[in-house]
Amino acid sequence: MKRMTPQNLRTPGPTPIPDDIVEAMTNPMINHRGPEFAALIKKSTEQLKQVFMTKNDLLILTASGTGALEASIVNTLSPGDRVIAATAGAFGDRFVDMAEAYGADVKRMDFEWGGPIDPEAIRKALHDEPNIKAVLVTHNETSTGVTHPVEEIAKIVKGEFDKLLLIDAVSSLGCIPLPVDAWDCDMVGTASQKGFMIPPGLSFISVSERAWEAQQTAKMPRFYFDLTLAKRSLEGGQTPFTPNLSAMYGLSRALDLLLEEGMENVFGRHATIGQLTRDGVRELGLKLLVEDEAYASDTVTAIKVPEGVDQKALMGKMRTEHNVVLAGGQGKLTADIFRIGHLGSVDKSDITEVMDALRVVLPEVGFDP
Amino acid sequence: MKRMTPQNLRTPGPTPIPDDIVEAMTNPMINHRGPEFAALIKKSTEQLKQVFMTKNDLLILTASGTGALEASIVNTLSPGDRVIAATAGAFGDRFVDMAEAYGADVKRMDFEWGGPIDPEAIRKALHDEPNIKAVLVTHNETSTGVTHPVEEIAKIVKGEFDKLLLIDAVSSLGCIPLPVDAWDCDMVGTASQKGFMIPPGLSFISVSERAWEAQQTAKMPRFYFDLTLAKRSLEGGQTPFTPNLSAMYGLSRALDLLLEEGMENVFGRHATIGQLTRDGVRELGLKLLVEDEAYASDTVTAIKVPEGVDQKALMGKMRTEHNVVLAGGQGKLTADIFRIGHLGSVDKSDITEVMDALRVVLPEVGFDP
Repeated sequence: MKRMTPQNLRTPGPTPIPDDIVEAMTNPMINHRGPEFAALIKKSTEQLKQVFMTKNDLLILTASGTGALEASIVNTLSPGDRVIAATAGAFGDRFVDMAEAYGADVKRMDFEWGGPIDPEAIRKALHDEPNIKAVLVTHNETSTGVTHPVEEIAKIVKGEFDKLLLIDAVSSLGCIPLPVDAWDCDMVGTASQKGFMIPPGLSFISVSERAWEAQQTAKMPRFYFDLTLAKRSLEGGQTPFTPNLSAMYGLSRALDLLLEEGMENVFGRHATIGQLTRDGVRELGLKLLVEDEAYASDTVTAIKVPEGVDQKALMGKMRTEHNVVLAGGQGKLTADIFRIGHLGSVDKSDITEVMDALRVVLPEVGFDP
Repeated sequence: MKRMTPQNLRTPGPTPIPDDIVEAMTNPMINHRGPEFAALIKKSTEQLKQVFMTKNDLLILTASGTGALEASIVNTLSPGDRVIAATAGAFGDRFVDMAEAYGADVKRMDFEWGGPIDPEAIRKALHDEPNIKAVLVTHNETSTGVTHPVEEIAKIVKGEFDKLLLIDAVSSLGCIPLPVDAWDCDMVGTASQKGFMIPPGLSFISVSERAWEAQQTAKMPRFYFDLTLAKRSLEGGQTPFTPNLSAMYGLSRALDLLLEEGMENVFGRHATIGQLTRDGVRELGLKLLVEDEAYASDTVTAIKVPEGVDQKALMGKMRTEHNVVLAGGQGKLTADIFRIGHLGSVDKSDITEVMDALRVVLPEVGFDP
């Protein structure tokens, strides 16, 4: 295939891949039932636990992030189980859809797209319905650029009501603090192409003791995503099904890089760059979807398409004339916003480039601040 | 990570990756909702149809081969559906386990490990039980090195009884002829790390009109493996969930290589090398698990561990002293056989190297022909 030109890829995942991760991924194939692989998966699993800030079991699945989230549902629930799924965007909606596909009796709680999930509403719902078994929450809603208050939600769900807590952390883990043990999260799923700076194709999930207990009576059917198989294989340094080896090589290098930088510094870098992005957007005279800094995501920023501006023309010119790839909206906001991803492999200059290009393109597509 | 030394990797997948596929996989990340990806997936899908010899829909999933096989079950069946699953090895057993995990009422038909599935037995079973909805068959049983007579089975299942036919073609497709349309197979699943010469992490599945019809009433729950979502996304040049981009780059190059070589030549190469392997094994005085050339697989050869020989010592010396990686057995044959993979990226010299090394190692581990 013709070699592609590297772009300033500012979608909220996949992210650009650092050169030495690309290099690591070119390592030759090995026997995934052999000693080299056993050493590889054991090392990466231990390092992943540091990034997840957990002593829980940590499993690596060959699937997109959605696969890990499906695993969190089918390994803890039975058809007919009453669960709360709180949603304020396309990925919250997806969590609802998945739980319903497997027969959960979902109490869907909708919050405004662009706003946070209200912990108080969850407290009230848990109080009103004592038979709720689990609460499903998105940590960082990629479609709107909101970081939901999972710490507060966890205090209620776990501390006050002692229910299962399943977290979609696809676009937050490794970028925004999510201390799995400190917040007592039962299942936390994320994916390789976001904070981990490697290509899509792997997902990671932490599983608490409480989640394993739930699994023993959980009757939703499962095979590929049966975490018992994954846990048993891991004890022998294997996976139940052939793993994505190239991404495993990349992951090993990526985890070294993250832990060398130090997770506090990685979180700090994302916070600084998130702020830089929002400040830059405001300075251009554009309106943020999420004005409240308390909930603004440090991994993705959604910007309202100004009146009179053609979103597709804007994104097209950014891509073809400035080599900057932005993302459109999703779901009901598809045409109303555009998004800048700033997670994983990102530094300030990447964002400065975006702002410089927007400054040129915006007037060309009819923006009159 | 420390760079690994390339091995003569003779497991039945993953296979070594040709250099220009490795090179293609280092292409930079792109927006998987953008125009470059749409062009990529459309091209590869059309080329995959040529390899599958089908006009059916062809879908690419980010999962191991087992994921595609789970998709074939959950998209066509409902809990309680009576199905036949014929098994003569570890992967036949896995197909049974998957169908049972999702609540199918499985008529399990066991055949000797190392022997073929008997089409006549399937005819009798279909005759005796008119309420059978589907037949699940492995084309090439990786654990024993047997190619099952799928053409004859298909004539019975489709031609005589008009039932759904679901095929595990993980270690055959692209290596051993499996003309999906000519044999009228409803669902055929395979994986990237076998005949396709790319790393694990993608699987491919063909879906007949008849299978889509079955899907409309199929009640097994599904989300990540819901092929309706994949089909709908493909119409827009996308996948429902973030795809394994690196492997997609490799796939594109691999399909060019396969089609340039010509599928007839690719099949011929596998047939020649399969024969070379079996002849070499016999010449060393070893016993094949599959003596009957009519069923001997052209992608993997199983060899009985000779009396007095320590299988682990044999494989260990081959790996550490001769850089040749063989596979052990699986399931109930774990310690009784060892296997040589000869599929995907393989030529005669790879096999000659194996035989030369075996000639040295066998006497060292107690072999006395």
